[in-house]
Amino acid sequence: MAFNKRVKIKELLENDYIDRDVVIMGWVRTKRSNKNVSFIALNDGSSIKNYQIVADPNILSEEILKKTTTGACLKVFGKIVPSQGAGQQNELVAAKIDILGEADPEKYPLQPKKHSLEFLREIAHLRVRTNTFGAVFRVRHALAFAVHKYFNDKGFFYIHTPIITASDAEGAGETFKVTTLDLKNPPISEDGKIDFKSDFFEKETNLTVSGQLEGELAAMGLGDIYTFGPTFRAENSNTARHLAEFWMIEPEMAFYDAEDNQDLAEDFLKYVISYALENCKDDIAFLDNRAAEEDSTKKADQRSEMGLLERLQFVVENKFQRLTYTEAIDVLKNSNYNKKQKFQYLIEDWGVDLQSEHERYLVEKHFKKPVILTDYPKEIKAFYMRQNDDGKTVAAMDILFPGIGEIVGGSQREERLDLLSKRMEEMNIPTEEMWWYLDTRRFGSTPHAGFGLGFERLVLFVTGMGNIRDVIAFPRTPGHAEF
Amino acid sequence: MAFNKRVKIKELLENDYIDRDVVIMGWVRTKRSNKNVSFIALNDGSSIKNYQIVADPNILSEEILKKTTTGACLKVFGKIVPSQGAGQQNELVAAKIDILGEADPEKYPLQPKKHSLEFLREIAHLRVRTNTFGAVFRVRHALAFAVHKYFNDKGFFYIHTPIITASDAEGAGETFKVTTLDLKNPPISEDGKIDFKSDFFEKETNLTVSGQLEGELAAMGLGDIYTFGPTFRAENSNTARHLAEFWMIEPEMAFYDAEDNQDLAEDFLKYVISYALENCKDDIAFLDNRAAEEDSTKKADQRSEMGLLERLQFVVENKFQRLTYTEAIDVLKNSNYNKKQKFQYLIEDWGVDLQSEHERYLVEKHFKKPVILTDYPKEIKAFYMRQNDDGKTVAAMDILFPGIGEIVGGSQREERLDLLSKRMEEMNIPTEEMWWYLDTRRFGSTPHAGFGLGFERLVLFVTGMGNIRDVIAFPRTPGHAEF
Repeated sequence: MAFNKRVKIKELLENDYIDRDVVIMGWVRTKRSNKNVSFIALNDGSSIKNYQIVADPNILSEEILKKTTTGACLKVFGKIVPSQGAGQQNELVAAKIDILGEADPEKYPLQPKKHSLEFLREIAHLRVRTNTFGAVFRVRHALAFAVHKYFNDKGFFYIHTPIITASDAEGAGETFKVTTLDLKNPPISEDGKIDFKSDFFEKETNLTVSGQLEGELAAMGLGDIYTFGPTFRAENSNTARHLAEFWMIEPEMAFYDAEDNQDLAEDFLKYVISYALENCKDDIAFLDNRAAEEDSTKKADQRSEMGLLERLQFVVENKFQRLTYTEAIDVLKNSNYNKKQKFQYLIEDWGVDLQSEHERYLVEKHFKKPVILTDYPKEIKAFYMRQNDDGKTVAAMDILFPGIGEIVGGSQREERLDLLSKRMEEMNIPTEEMWWYLDTRRFGSTPHAGFGLGFERLVLFVTGMGNIRDVIAFPRTPGHAEF
Repeated sequence: MAFNKRVKIKELLENDYIDRDVVIMGWVRTKRSNKNVSFIALNDGSSIKNYQIVADPNILSEEILKKTTTGACLKVFGKIVPSQGAGQQNELVAAKIDILGEADPEKYPLQPKKHSLEFLREIAHLRVRTNTFGAVFRVRHALAFAVHKYFNDKGFFYIHTPIITASDAEGAGETFKVTTLDLKNPPISEDGKIDFKSDFFEKETNLTVSGQLEGELAAMGLGDIYTFGPTFRAENSNTARHLAEFWMIEPEMAFYDAEDNQDLAEDFLKYVISYALENCKDDIAFLDNRAAEEDSTKKADQRSEMGLLERLQFVVENKFQRLTYTEAIDVLKNSNYNKKQKFQYLIEDWGVDLQSEHERYLVEKHFKKPVILTDYPKEIKAFYMRQNDDGKTVAAMDILFPGIGEIVGGSQREERLDLLSKRMEEMNIPTEEMWWYLDTRRFGSTPHAGFGLGFERLVLFVTGMGNIRDVIAFPRTPGHAEF
């Protein structure tokens, strides 16, 4: 007795069902009634669009219509007919309605009115039933699928790098400890330290900050690989841009140099954004409106120069501006912002790390397009980046997007054993512990490169949402691990 | 100066490149030489097949050929010509070879001979360069992509459920603790317990054992969703079937009942296996041979009745046998295995949990096809499974595969608030803490269902490998968190 004989609303909207009897199921968004008829807007999550149900109180019982309140779940039997009202082409004339689940209007928190994003975060288990979050999660899905499709079509292999790891060699940030020890009575060894021999993995372990190093190992046998998995930072950052748990995409490619890496990253970003534009038209149109409304409440000088849709098309259609860090420093030094002291941190010397304000100036004010910054000073970058011949810079790249700042960070990797070992020693990275990483340079080394994309930053950019907590289903931030 | 102008070996093998000049790059598998010519087998990870390079010592320097040893990485320039030898259609006549990275034959551990899987596990950073592991990881990739493609094509949305969680309500097993507290000096509150208010999330947290409950929340707004993420068990199980960190796929569907759920799971499994059969022909042919060789070393009564390829085709082509737990108990009770005491655990009474030997008897001896067992006693299943009208059983399903045993576990979920709350109380599951889960039954509840598939079990089945540590890149098991 299969229950699921429904037609999805997306399917109804995109195909000709006129005069056919169908069953649809979903949640009531609104009901408008007069004494002759009720109009019920039903949503089943397949589309941002509701489907209109026409309910005649002479056919349907009073009790059923009474229980048809916002949030209730219905199974509706009826015929599809051309709509006489404005707002939709077709509608369903209900012959029968089953109430699958009621939603007491006194208690159900999602009544049809405007709710703040902060309030919705507190009921993250229900917010997926709103227009905004339905759209965000459908776009998020499309972007995730586009990532897999892009790499699969190009012959890359998806590698699941470990989540629990004993190495924090990258030094990318504070880590979460993973343990099965009794926290109250941890075993102490003779030297007075925690005896991790008794822990599950018989050593100290933490949650990964990046799958890159393991990704490199796989690339040095399979050629082109990518990861797409969760990564973690135990940093006490309560900002609209940081999560303690987020998803990263990290391709690593044997036989790629810095330029190959830049070409791939640009092509990849354009592909996944184009994919969302093509496959999420209704959702992005809704989010475009939403962003415009939100923008209109801001002061004139804080409004975006472009709307969401415009911004996405702009990224897809324009070649990213590529320049070196050294060139960028010149641009910034000679900028009016620097001269008139509009930057909080003035640019004086080569070698300083760029702040978000500098990145946004380059992207939003100077070049007015996405920027790929390359060849950073080695002092401000990680040990594994390939050293350039100048002895001062490494073959790094950061990709900067309007409104977001850094969306991608990557580099050609140092493939020369002697230079890599020397740099690790300079930076106090234990070469013995990392024997396996160095082995790839000992045996059959080759030029290779890769980059990392924070997936939520991408979703933030494509949905135009303002806070990263609103683009992942159940965000983890300091003090927050609900649901 | 882009470096990556190579043609992948897979591309060379599948297309006509005769008389064209190409560049290929990859790692040397073997070299055979006589005084007139060297034959180099090169592999770049794109295919299980090597490409043959013909190197004339009159054209190439002695030093280059000397460095062309197993494991070395080469960039080879030359022309594709029809091969005169057996074993391949075409080959590359080298005009020039660059050594990208040497591999000292005295030190490189992967010399061309048979290595044990145990030894290769110790050098998991290099094992991806072997035939067996190259094949396993390409098949693993194809299966992962097939999972995403299947659900995307059916209108499901991919949801990233949280990895760090404060709820262990499912009680699915021992968990890993996640903390930033100082393990040596944890803060103690007045009542003598650990003061988790000082921890990162201000409460006790652990690594997820399942994304199901959060998946249900999303399904109750988006309709059809799936998860594909890492899950964890801190169980001290040193078996060939258990990992501490593994990947799970968990679809959850609003408006599905138990039968819809069974139909979907069967269709899904057949799809992903068919996808691998179509897209990994060479790899599966290799693994089929490998499994046959391994089988031939076993005693006659321990050999598989079917070869790997045969087994995969068998699953794809046959309708799974569906029967209830109660019917299965009858089959087992009346079996010769029970009567002749061949089972370690004899089946006497209704209500006992089935052991692996019983599951395998049903699949491999009795029905000789995959089995979907349904409607288990409620006492041996989780709280969220829908209670059947008999008051004794729940709408659970387990899918059993030959050689593997349980590959899928799922159920229709209990959508009735009163029955669910009562069952949670009976099983001591805190209903207050789980207010958000119960909210989905309070507001717009509906019949819904879902299942979980352990991804590594699927990869194990499709690759014919014997140990689950050999189908994930860097396995985590008790005492092991290397790389």
